[in-house]
Amino acid sequence: MSQQPVIWTYDWVPEMPRGFVRDLRLRWACEEAGLAHDVRTVPFEGRGPEHFARQPFGQVPFLTDGDVTLFESGACLLYLARKSEALMPRDAVGEAEVLEWVVAALNSMEMASVPWWFLNMTGATENGLTGWMDSRLGHMETVLGQREWLAAGRFTVADLLMADVLRVPTVRAHGDRPATEAYVKRITSRPAFLKARDAQLAHFAAADKQRAKAG
Amino acid sequence: MSQQPVIWTYDWVPEMPRGFVRDLRLRWACEEAGLAHDVRTVPFEGRGPEHFARQPFGQVPFLTDGDVTLFESGACLLYLARKSEALMPRDAVGEAEVLEWVVAALNSMEMASVPWWFLNMTGATENGLTGWMDSRLGHMETVLGQREWLAAGRFTVADLLMADVLRVPTVRAHGDRPATEAYVKRITSRPAFLKARDAQLAHFAAADKQRAKAG
Repeated sequence: MSQQPVIWTYDWVPEMPRGFVRDLRLRWACEEAGLAHDVRTVPFEGRGPEHFARQPFGQVPFLTDGDVTLFESGACLLYLARKSEALMPRDAVGEAEVLEWVVAALNSMEMASVPWWFLNMTGATENGLTGWMDSRLGHMETVLGQREWLAAGRFTVADLLMADVLRVPTVRAHGDRPATEAYVKRITSRPAFLKARDAQLAHFAAADKQRAKAG
Repeated sequence: MSQQPVIWTYDWVPEMPRGFVRDLRLRWACEEAGLAHDVRTVPFEGRGPEHFARQPFGQVPFLTDGDVTLFESGACLLYLARKSEALMPRDAVGEAEVLEWVVAALNSMEMASVPWWFLNMTGATENGLTGWMDSRLGHMETVLGQREWLAAGRFTVADLLMADVLRVPTVRAHGDRPATEAYVKRITSRPAFLKARDAQLAHFAAADKQRAKAG
């Protein structure tokens, strides 16, 4: 059994989601914290019972670390955050701030933006969720106009997650929110993000070569 | 300053959301854990800067506990879960299971069901999110057909949250999922849920009387 956390992702994905598959969130957190980690894969095509046993919705990522296995990128981030103060402070107030903003990214922001993006992808650019998403993005613009970091006055896993939610190209291109745009640019120019993204892109590029050889 | 956690909710809401306003999740958790708590209110109509300072999206609930203030019902549940083993076990494997299922309720299940319900409310019964929600509900039906509890082999805050997500009437009425239906019935027949729901209903009924007197 591996002595370091293992991030599980797909063996291959089509071009479009590359750079956005959510194993990136975990790779990024490990880079920020200097946590050694391995990356292993499950098949993208033909997801089997072993995959569903570890991720009941048939998605990625999931994380294994000794006896612990857990899915949901948000849960994995909170789990990794306990391993390193680089990701989350240790005082009760700071931890509570990180926790609330991690959940806000998942359940207030992404709950509006992902379904909107999903409908948008089918061609419904203006859809029944646009007003709701605009309202949530507007509240975030207010918050980000007033502060540099979401929680604890410093970079934490809350910024990692919120920036990842807000950087989705269609969401970013929709409307004009200068504070949000500056925030996304700032957070995603961190060396740890760039390193993690390049690692994911290299992973899927290697899969293309493998496929070309096999095919 | 109060010596016990304070759950903040609206002073009044219309008839329809009563029994579903998310302060219920926190009341329920406190009842399960036997945690003494106070309930205080912010105005439903005319949400002011003090409200947005504590909940940047202008929603409820939020929780105050000594120096700690936090919003997002999911975050508040994880915070309360640290106070009582009745809500979450203390071993690393059990905690990870609770964490993953709490986030799954928020970001895999509710991310599909709330926007679907939102579009459904506008009259679009079959909408662009129906297939997505059906798929997520289908995976939950498989999981709930195989086990009694989501995490750690016992009731935890993960069941509290998932049952609250799945009990939404329009979602529950959509499709036939016997394991899910049995799960929702079982979890929401717990005395702590009934006590918390009755307390919320009584809170808003008292607000009606207050309004009638004032008006």
